[in-house]
Amino acid sequence: MKNLDERTITQAVIERNSFSSNERLKDVMLSLVQHLHSFAREVQLTEEEWEIGINFLTAVGQICSPTRQEFILLSDTLGLSTLVIAQNHKKPLGCTEATVFGPFHVQDAPHLELGSNMSEGVKGTPWFVSGAIKGIDGQIIPNAEIEAWQADDEGFYDVQKPDLEKYQGRAVFHADQNGKYHFQTIVPEAYPIPHDGPVGKMLEALNRHPWRPAHLHFMISAPGYERLVTHVFKDESAYLDSDAVFGVRTSLIAQWIKHENGVAPNGEYHSNPFYTLEFDFILNKEQVKVEAA
Amino acid sequence: MKNLDERTITQAVIERNSFSSNERLKDVMLSLVQHLHSFAREVQLTEEEWEIGINFLTAVGQICSPTRQEFILLSDTLGLSTLVIAQNHKKPLGCTEATVFGPFHVQDAPHLELGSNMSEGVKGTPWFVSGAIKGIDGQIIPNAEIEAWQADDEGFYDVQKPDLEKYQGRAVFHADQNGKYHFQTIVPEAYPIPHDGPVGKMLEALNRHPWRPAHLHFMISAPGYERLVTHVFKDESAYLDSDAVFGVRTSLIAQWIKHENGVAPNGEYHSNPFYTLEFDFILNKEQVKVEAA
Repeated sequence: MKNLDERTITQAVIERNSFSSNERLKDVMLSLVQHLHSFAREVQLTEEEWEIGINFLTAVGQICSPTRQEFILLSDTLGLSTLVIAQNHKKPLGCTEATVFGPFHVQDAPHLELGSNMSEGVKGTPWFVSGAIKGIDGQIIPNAEIEAWQADDEGFYDVQKPDLEKYQGRAVFHADQNGKYHFQTIVPEAYPIPHDGPVGKMLEALNRHPWRPAHLHFMISAPGYERLVTHVFKDESAYLDSDAVFGVRTSLIAQWIKHENGVAPNGEYHSNPFYTLEFDFILNKEQVKVEAA
Repeated sequence: MKNLDERTITQAVIERNSFSSNERLKDVMLSLVQHLHSFAREVQLTEEEWEIGINFLTAVGQICSPTRQEFILLSDTLGLSTLVIAQNHKKPLGCTEATVFGPFHVQDAPHLELGSNMSEGVKGTPWFVSGAIKGIDGQIIPNAEIEAWQADDEGFYDVQKPDLEKYQGRAVFHADQNGKYHFQTIVPEAYPIPHDGPVGKMLEALNRHPWRPAHLHFMISAPGYERLVTHVFKDESAYLDSDAVFGVRTSLIAQWIKHENGVAPNGEYHSNPFYTLEFDFILNKEQVKVEAA
């Protein structure tokens, strides 16, 4: 393995990687090396451009923190996240579609009782969200775990606000025995993905805007069912047709109904406007994985 | 741009990127997005594997520091560096070949007089390196800048030793008016690339060793000539046939001659062994770039 040139290097790397005992890793690396090298040859990548690439990836890694995941943002804005989700969630028509995970999930969101306000004390228009968790044939799925997270009415997630002492705009609920859920929060606004870092610079160089339409994140888990990671988008939000991370699905756009005043779902009279959303989630049965003998 | 699936997402991202006014960036991103997506489809990348990839790249970025460049190491071990160098340095037969830059170059190496010892006070076998900088037709290139850097006799670069107060085993020299250079140092040993980080884990999973054959780095610059980044490898070093970063070229392997004792090139008598190396570098004329009108 000496004197490798821009053609022979590819086979040399593949050979070198072929001694792994991890067959899956070998397959993944084979394809990765071929595509990485084909890319560099196809565009005749220069050394200066290679260096720009090295520096870009380094900056993406360095800005990552427990509350910021710039590589997920990069994957989202390059459409890789949507691709991976799509090819891993082919499910029967009628099941709720999945969409991107996004970079703002945390592992330790507070657990709240059904009906609680997950944006307690946060400025914004009250919003009452409710619905049911069901199977594809309409069967009740009792006690599913429902994690919700969202931006506030200025478009910021709690983890983007270094001064907050505790989480807001996120919680874990459990549906009741009849599969029903309801909680209170505030109406989130459309917002730009964090664009003060390297991914923001990339979008700018590509003449792309960083905005996402208004949405509420959900992750729903129940034994025997495929975990569902999705959003519910606000109908008539801006950017539904140009989501910076390619996540919008028609079936996930729902009516966020505005009420000028009146008795809200929590039984209280509101003299100011509030919103309601009713959205049912249809989970897919967990696929039994066929293991090779 | 709604309801994108694992096929339609690629065209959607390409379209979104097509409004950049930077034509070169557009071309590079077109190829990059196509290959990135083809890779993910080809191996049917799962969400768990996507997450492993995100975490791997994040770890690579986070371990980078002013004295450690793990993304260059990744590029080197995946053969990308050798590919990019090869396709950007096609030059006439007889010119000294280029090889990988490596992650251990620094911007502010000390400038030393010709004949100086760039490993002053460092334990190891004395080594006297000399030669000339020439053009392809044998013409003298006077006063070229010669930067050299190397590992010590335990296989470590200075920047890998946090306790050192100043650089060692690296310096910038200038050839004399006749294109000649000479300096003193110690004989470097074969060494493993840093393998205590994510790239090391990758090599381990691939059942690959991290070793490089013994070599001395050079970067040589002279007005009117293409900058040369290369190594001189030690003949009969271990790992010449399995360099972890695919950098060995037959023309860069030279005789590092051992002398049991005697008068060294610096005129001093040595009662213990020392080495000598004579190596001439043949630079390529700078290519005049043809700019599009």
